[in-house]
Amino acid sequence: MIDEPSSTSAEDRLIARYFRPLAKHPGALALIDDVALLTPRAGHDIVLTTDAIVAGVHFFPDDPPDMVAKKALRVNLSDLAAKGATPAGFLLTFALPTAVGDGWIERFAHGLGADADAYGCPLLGGDSVSTPGPATISITALGTLPQGTMVPRSSAGVGESIVVTGTIGDAALGLLLRKEMANTGRWRLDAQQQSLLIDRYLLPQPRNPLAEALRLHASAAMDVSDGLIGDLAKLCAASGVSAEVAIKNVPIPDAAKRVLAADPTQMETVLTGGDDHEIVCTVADDRLESFRAAAVAAGVPVTEIGQITAGKGPPRFVGRDGQPMVFKQTSFSHF
Amino acid sequence: MIDEPSSTSAEDRLIARYFRPLAKHPGALALIDDVALLTPRAGHDIVLTTDAIVAGVHFFPDDPPDMVAKKALRVNLSDLAAKGATPAGFLLTFALPTAVGDGWIERFAHGLGADADAYGCPLLGGDSVSTPGPATISITALGTLPQGTMVPRSSAGVGESIVVTGTIGDAALGLLLRKEMANTGRWRLDAQQQSLLIDRYLLPQPRNPLAEALRLHASAAMDVSDGLIGDLAKLCAASGVSAEVAIKNVPIPDAAKRVLAADPTQMETVLTGGDDHEIVCTVADDRLESFRAAAVAAGVPVTEIGQITAGKGPPRFVGRDGQPMVFKQTSFSHF
Repeated sequence: MIDEPSSTSAEDRLIARYFRPLAKHPGALALIDDVALLTPRAGHDIVLTTDAIVAGVHFFPDDPPDMVAKKALRVNLSDLAAKGATPAGFLLTFALPTAVGDGWIERFAHGLGADADAYGCPLLGGDSVSTPGPATISITALGTLPQGTMVPRSSAGVGESIVVTGTIGDAALGLLLRKEMANTGRWRLDAQQQSLLIDRYLLPQPRNPLAEALRLHASAAMDVSDGLIGDLAKLCAASGVSAEVAIKNVPIPDAAKRVLAADPTQMETVLTGGDDHEIVCTVADDRLESFRAAAVAAGVPVTEIGQITAGKGPPRFVGRDGQPMVFKQTSFSHF
Repeated sequence: MIDEPSSTSAEDRLIARYFRPLAKHPGALALIDDVALLTPRAGHDIVLTTDAIVAGVHFFPDDPPDMVAKKALRVNLSDLAAKGATPAGFLLTFALPTAVGDGWIERFAHGLGADADAYGCPLLGGDSVSTPGPATISITALGTLPQGTMVPRSSAGVGESIVVTGTIGDAALGLLLRKEMANTGRWRLDAQQQSLLIDRYLLPQPRNPLAEALRLHASAAMDVSDGLIGDLAKLCAASGVSAEVAIKNVPIPDAAKRVLAADPTQMETVLTGGDDHEIVCTVADDRLESFRAAAVAAGVPVTEIGQITAGKGPPRFVGRDGQPMVFKQTSFSHF
């Protein structure tokens, strides 16, 4: 089927019913135009990021639609947070199979609207198309920050502390549980630990409250989405430096520690599995105390895990035995 | 398959080889960050638009990949043109099936780069994901214009002239030819006419050179993408007005006239089929002469096809017999 004209009216009806109520920002033009309009704040830059998620690849087709919407928005919000930007709004493009009914879309829009409000990131516009393939949701988010203050990936300095927010590995283990519930028994998890890990996979917790602290104190930063090892390697490569991380310092939640006690090989999942949507950043010595205080004030837990070192090799992750750990499959296998 | 870590390196390789050379704008940060950075021009607004195209829905899977890339960008450029905005850059998200090989991506990137240069709209960033479904390309384009000068859809005034650019209906007929080549004989087209119509479907010609003229002289404007009848109805509805259009004034190219001579029922395709990516706008009497002169200077043919009228009904399209035409299926069937 190519371009059924009748799909236009279905699209219009869908937009009017479920998405127009979300378009409260004046720049959304109530979704009656094909565009959105932003008047930039004087003296501010605009940070743009786009991330797509596909049913069967980045989420399960039977995941709750409100969670899918929130995940689609939050993976973008996490990128804005890592750069020190304040959310300004987003554009939504979704390609949906016809089998996805109004009920799914209603719940999707409900979740999206709740997060747009919670994070102060209003819907500005978008596009909806039909697809014979899986549901595909693409969001472009915009943020603003004072001119010249974006925290890049490429400016980590030798000797700086490497800091991560929150905890690492929960989401990747949650994915393994979501794929195979039998892992719950294998890893001797109780119901609470199981749902804690799965929830972390389903629903990232972007660190937007930390944006200002990053802007004021961090030298380099990025969202951890493809695993701590691979993403830190990317940050180091972009900055022309290396790093040394002590595994014992990596903040691993209790539920994940339980998994590691039952199956130590899951350390690889924890460090390379991805979907953390935490932030890894580097902070110079003379900024560290201020950064820690700002993080406390923002309510975001931060942990120092290592140092930036000179050199160009991939980061060394040093185990309790003092030896660098080697992983079979890491997202930095291309280095 | 969910989130194979190894896909990251394939993605990095792909981006480095084919897309980094396109990221010449400093705000693209050479695609090494997850974001793009724009410093807005002082006193200017930002116009944002997003449009997705799906293989098997908006293009044929065997369309040339460079044409697919150009189409994906041009449908967005057309929206910027209609609002009077100058292109500033774009973000690209593509979900590709694994069967799409490097050769396809190389040709896609080549077409994209050529149009990015031709239209002054550089690649700023993006995301690539794998999909078990059809190739899906989503572009978010940004434009700029002096603050407060965007040409909305909602401000057409009674008595204003309705003007369209270029010609209407070629692309919709081209789609019917692309779907069924036997139509060429049925409609008594020669090879040149056939390829002219098909090319218009494959490759929109957005009217970006007209942007300034629209900003200076038009009251309301929009991109004609879902058929002239339906889109003019949307413009009228947004403006709280109606319209009267004389069919004899609608600019229909010679090849389409040949089709209509062979099969008069194809008038419905011409007026409702869509994919024109021309601009329909309204111009007040005292601006009409200046607008015409600016369009000539910009090299964009424009034609007056009717007037905005008072009332709230859908536009009347009046045939040669003086009677309003009625179509079985129009994209404004929801009114």
